[in-house]
Amino acid sequence: MKPGYSLMRHYLQFKDFRAEEYAYLFERARVIKQRFKNYEKYQPLTDRTLAMIFEKASTRTRVSFEAGMYQMGGSVVHLTTGDSQLGRSEPIEDSARVISRMVDLVMIRTFEQSKIERFAAHSRVPVINGLTNEFHPCQILADLLTYLEHRAPVNASGYDLNCLKGKVVAWVGDGNNMANTWLQAAEILGFTVHVSTPSGYEVDPAVAGVRDIGCYKVFKNPLDACRGAHLVTTDVWTSMGYEAENAERLKAFADWCVDAEMMAAAQPDALFMHCLPAHRGEEVTADVIDGPQSVVWDEAENRMHVQKALMEYLLLGRIG
Amino acid sequence: MKPGYSLMRHYLQFKDFRAEEYAYLFERARVIKQRFKNYEKYQPLTDRTLAMIFEKASTRTRVSFEAGMYQMGGSVVHLTTGDSQLGRSEPIEDSARVISRMVDLVMIRTFEQSKIERFAAHSRVPVINGLTNEFHPCQILADLLTYLEHRAPVNASGYDLNCLKGKVVAWVGDGNNMANTWLQAAEILGFTVHVSTPSGYEVDPAVAGVRDIGCYKVFKNPLDACRGAHLVTTDVWTSMGYEAENAERLKAFADWCVDAEMMAAAQPDALFMHCLPAHRGEEVTADVIDGPQSVVWDEAENRMHVQKALMEYLLLGRIG
Amino acid sequence: MKPGYSLMRHYLQFKDFRAEEYAYLFERARVIKQRFKNYEKYQPLTDRTLAMIFEKASTRTRVSFEAGMYQMGGSVVHLTTGDSQLGRSEPIEDSARVISRMVDLVMIRTFEQSKIERFAAHSRVPVINGLTNEFHPCQILADLLTYLEHRAPVNASGYDLNCLKGKVVAWVGDGNNMANTWLQAAEILGFTVHVSTPSGYEVDPAVAGVRDIGCYKVFKNPLDACRGAHLVTTDVWTSMGYEAENAERLKAFADWCVDAEMMAAAQPDALFMHCLPAHRGEEVTADVIDGPQSVVWDEAENRMHVQKALMEYLLLGRIG
Repeated sequence: MKPGYSLMRHYLQFKDFRAEEYAYLFERARVIKQRFKNYEKYQPLTDRTLAMIFEKASTRTRVSFEAGMYQMGGSVVHLTTGDSQLGRSEPIEDSARVISRMVDLVMIRTFEQSKIERFAAHSRVPVINGLTNEFHPCQILADLLTYLEHRAPVNASGYDLNCLKGKVVAWVGDGNNMANTWLQAAEILGFTVHVSTPSGYEVDPAVAGVRDIGCYKVFKNPLDACRGAHLVTTDVWTSMGYEAENAERLKAFADWCVDAEMMAAAQPDALFMHCLPAHRGEEVTADVIDGPQSVVWDEAENRMHVQKALMEYLLLGRIG
Repeated sequence: MKPGYSLMRHYLQFKDFRAEEYAYLFERARVIKQRFKNYEKYQPLTDRTLAMIFEKASTRTRVSFEAGMYQMGGSVVHLTTGDSQLGRSEPIEDSARVISRMVDLVMIRTFEQSKIERFAAHSRVPVINGLTNEFHPCQILADLLTYLEHRAPVNASGYDLNCLKGKVVAWVGDGNNMANTWLQAAEILGFTVHVSTPSGYEVDPAVAGVRDIGCYKVFKNPLDACRGAHLVTTDVWTSMGYEAENAERLKAFADWCVDAEMMAAAQPDALFMHCLPAHRGEEVTADVIDGPQSVVWDEAENRMHVQKALMEYLLLGRIG
Repeated sequence: MKPGYSLMRHYLQFKDFRAEEYAYLFERARVIKQRFKNYEKYQPLTDRTLAMIFEKASTRTRVSFEAGMYQMGGSVVHLTTGDSQLGRSEPIEDSARVISRMVDLVMIRTFEQSKIERFAAHSRVPVINGLTNEFHPCQILADLLTYLEHRAPVNASGYDLNCLKGKVVAWVGDGNNMANTWLQAAEILGFTVHVSTPSGYEVDPAVAGVRDIGCYKVFKNPLDACRGAHLVTTDVWTSMGYEAENAERLKAFADWCVDAEMMAAAQPDALFMHCLPAHRGEEVTADVIDGPQSVVWDEAENRMHVQKALMEYLLLGRIG
């Protein structure tokens, strides 16, 4: 850690930060993105190294963290399962002690949330959740930044997060790590998630870790979930690690395809998001994902910008 | 792209550039190499990131692009098939949209040329062909730079490319991506390729994409192809992706081994090149590849220098 | 190589350097570490590239070399067996010629020492042994730095290496690459290694390459080896590459577990080291490795600092 910044923070799930911290983060993301687009060099992390540990493959997470870190003047060590499966050749706690002696920041993509928590508990440096079975907070960071870019007023201190209050996000599909993270975000930032999942794939508020049951409503029919929504979003039917269930899932999810009818039920200016990769004709129709309400490419790009703000915050604290 | 440089270019095959652009590129390569050899720091690509996508393994392409980009102050994200097989988990077009939102330049080594073309068509940033089944333009760039270094006069604007006019390059062996690219280079730069391949492994001018049939001559006998040549060059008999045909190819290619007799038939000061890895005793004898006319190590090194010039050109346009 | 530094050196085994060079190296490691801990930027290797070739997987070696090189302003190309198995697609000598034309420094982790020697013989740039079946000199560098940090006085020219003279290092376990390297270090720096291995796993002075038989003593009983030792150290019973012998080794090594009794037999202030990963309950008990005499985390971290000094020395020679 930089001298003078004594409080080490991890980012393991969305509720690790408070609402006012998110206001700060999104404002930093806006500034950092703007600076980058203007080719203004901004390298506050020279000399700092990020270790990325991947137990599940990834393109978006790889490229967004790696390019983001380089742009800020830092460097990246990319470790895959073959190099260092967490907990195989040594206890996770030992890996955390060793790796965190050599680098300044660690990002982990793994299976159980408990693995990343054990790692963080023995790490000397901040740890970021780059996706677990339970949560995907960096993706929701990107989604929210994208929503704010398209819909929020910018005032003196940045995006006005009050614009999120009372808004409706429709989650159509699997009650997975994305859904859980949306619930946490809703509770902290004051919006509501309309969740519609096939039977057997419901979100579990205990797993999601939300106390305020008012932050989400469950709908049997996905069309009902979309009614009046300001944002409609979904995910692949079969997330990584669940490939064995693929055939069964294809059947169960058949009616949870986001299509023009669902978008028509939402607000007229509703946005469509998808964390990608997308399977057109399964969880979303081509006319929706490739249509005018879709902001999926901005959303993908914003992973990088918002993660730059996150890394800056974890390593340097508040700037200025 | 840098502001003020509005025209985005890709480098997917040799004929994507005109002769005068090559003159510029080789001169930049000469200057950049000289500067590097003198330990003069030259980092015009600080803040810029290259994504390299490998669907076929590589040492030379990896190291030359990666070290070259670092030397120019930029950074590299290295993606292998395991991380991101093009077109498997999502359409190539989606990968292109996402990756090109996060990086400044993309290099792809893949199978079909059509894959790299689909990627480029949806990329926001320049795409470089790092080898396909059909073409290998970066290798021919290196080969030509090496030839110029050893044989061309340097005038005020750099290497005089007129020295290539009327020269003869003997291609002995497989009518593969290297042969196709040599044909394109000959057409653009005004030399002639003497091609000798076993029956069944001929070059196909339609695949090579050359209109001027005068840019190459076909010889049944490899010795005849070498007569009077200024450069003799070959490649492994079994390129990557064709391993299943290995036994059959060993038989078919037995008479297409570049040996001292072939070199003796060429010009007395003819150079020998090979894009490596080499199998001594198969496509070339040890006395040729390890002999005084061989410039294979310079050729390998020049991959790096000429690719630095290429990346500079694609990202910054003409300097000064 | 930097201009003015004409003598190229490799670091393939511990005895490649003389005692006074080690004094210099450890002093540089101390300075470089201190500077890094104080967030003083020190980037003498800007523009320089390290190629790391791994034929055996690694976390510690990866992270320590890669982060270390980045911190010094340089960059790293990480090649694994899949990319470039040494000697498979081309002779090792050709790989050495090509790779060393494009980078400034090469680190190799491989099987036979002869492989790394063949590579070095044809390399234009310095080669570092990142572990072979026979030697692991970088680990012993880290171990010695850690010992010096905890036990050596610092005088005007750095750590006083005379403090090592007459000291006793107890090696308990496999007569492997670590043991061989300890023997070389003892011979050069004037201490004694007490070696105790199960029958069939003895160190071989011919393999270790030590002439002065006085640099080590063999003990049947590991407890006897530990008596009066200033440092007790061990390694996993089954090193990488010997997994097939695992069951057999578990039986043979059962009495070579470093425990509280062995530590009690050593000097009261003896240190415990382990190059990790550790298997608690096999080669060491939890109370020893997690106890007050254990310095294993400092030892792991010091890989990075001492390797930074090593890379600086190989690339730039003596500073100032």
